[in-house]
Amino acid sequence: MKIPDKVINRLTLYHYILDDYENEFISSTKIAELLDIDNSQVRKDIKYLNNSGKCRVGYDVKTLKQAIESELGFKNHRSAFIIGAGNLGSALAKYDNFKDYGLDIKAMFDNDTLRVGNTVNGKEVYHVSELPKLVKKMNVDIAILTVPKVCASETAKYLVNSGIKYIWNFTTCILDVSGDVKVWNENLIGNFIQFTHENDV
Amino acid sequence: MKIPDKVINRLTLYHYILDDYENEFISSTKIAELLDIDNSQVRKDIKYLNNSGKCRVGYDVKTLKQAIESELGFKNHRSAFIIGAGNLGSALAKYDNFKDYGLDIKAMFDNDTLRVGNTVNGKEVYHVSELPKLVKKMNVDIAILTVPKVCASETAKYLVNSGIKYIWNFTTCILDVSGDVKVWNENLIGNFIQFTHENDV
Repeated sequence: MKIPDKVINRLTLYHYILDDYENEFISSTKIAELLDIDNSQVRKDIKYLNNSGKCRVGYDVKTLKQAIESELGFKNHRSAFIIGAGNLGSALAKYDNFKDYGLDIKAMFDNDTLRVGNTVNGKEVYHVSELPKLVKKMNVDIAILTVPKVCASETAKYLVNSGIKYIWNFTTCILDVSGDVKVWNENLIGNFIQFTHENDV
Repeated sequence: MKIPDKVINRLTLYHYILDDYENEFISSTKIAELLDIDNSQVRKDIKYLNNSGKCRVGYDVKTLKQAIESELGFKNHRSAFIIGAGNLGSALAKYDNFKDYGLDIKAMFDNDTLRVGNTVNGKEVYHVSELPKLVKKMNVDIAILTVPKVCASETAKYLVNSGIKYIWNFTTCILDVSGDVKVWNENLIGNFIQFTHENDV
């Protein structure tokens, strides 16, 4: 069954809660309260899972957690490169949680020779010219794009020519790549506007 | 009219395109192609705007851009503090685009004395103990939370006690704050899972 994007997003948040939860059972009311959403919404979302561990006293924390992991594929191993070893790239490289959710950052790339050769959280920074070779060698097809906006378009073309198939784009440049490469725009500004729009900040 | 979140998100992406577009007119087909979505979706989204600048040869780029800015409030001025001056906080402080979209980062806060006193992209880093005073003085009620996960819960409580009303939460900790404070969880992992789920990476 195809799970709607919003449900995937919320299930991930439920997982964050379960990850820190110290009791054996948790109620949908507790989850709803922590996220400031409707109890009925939580119960509806959890119905997408095969075995939610629901019982008289609530959901079994361990079972529910495993059900989310299994449904959303947290144990699937996906390797990625970070392109751009500036602040944002380094922050994402240090985001240890990624690995728990199936995303394994294998290396970073930059064109700044001062950054090349450094390691960030155990990930080596290579010169971008090494990308085509390492895409093949390390069998990586996901790139996380964190270069400055002015270089984004050119870098994306280079990624595609190097064999990258999926680009998680953190820049505000809309990338014009061919159809067989998938781009996911991480739209921070759009998210902020949603937030302020709904709350009339 | 309340605009759905997904539409807000896409309108922001259309704005990125218009921002870089060099011709006077643009077709919905061109926008759709760049984002790899349906043409009909683009036209439907644009109908949410009052004056889209639609004419025989496409949309007038300038008019459409202004219509999006006006509808989504890019010219509304919203001030925020960044809490946590590490890589992620610094990356966000350097994100110059934020200001174009109405988000004005006024200052940063950290508890690391080595960071206090630095400036990042013109934003001064203050010690967190100064927060309550500066919330009042600078009239800021939005906090962007980029501290390590282990400090997130405690820091959020402190933000609330300091008078912050909106928290844009970049940590993977679900914050247990009282009802009159709004939290927006920037769920990077959820976004990644959506991406890989729909594309069967």
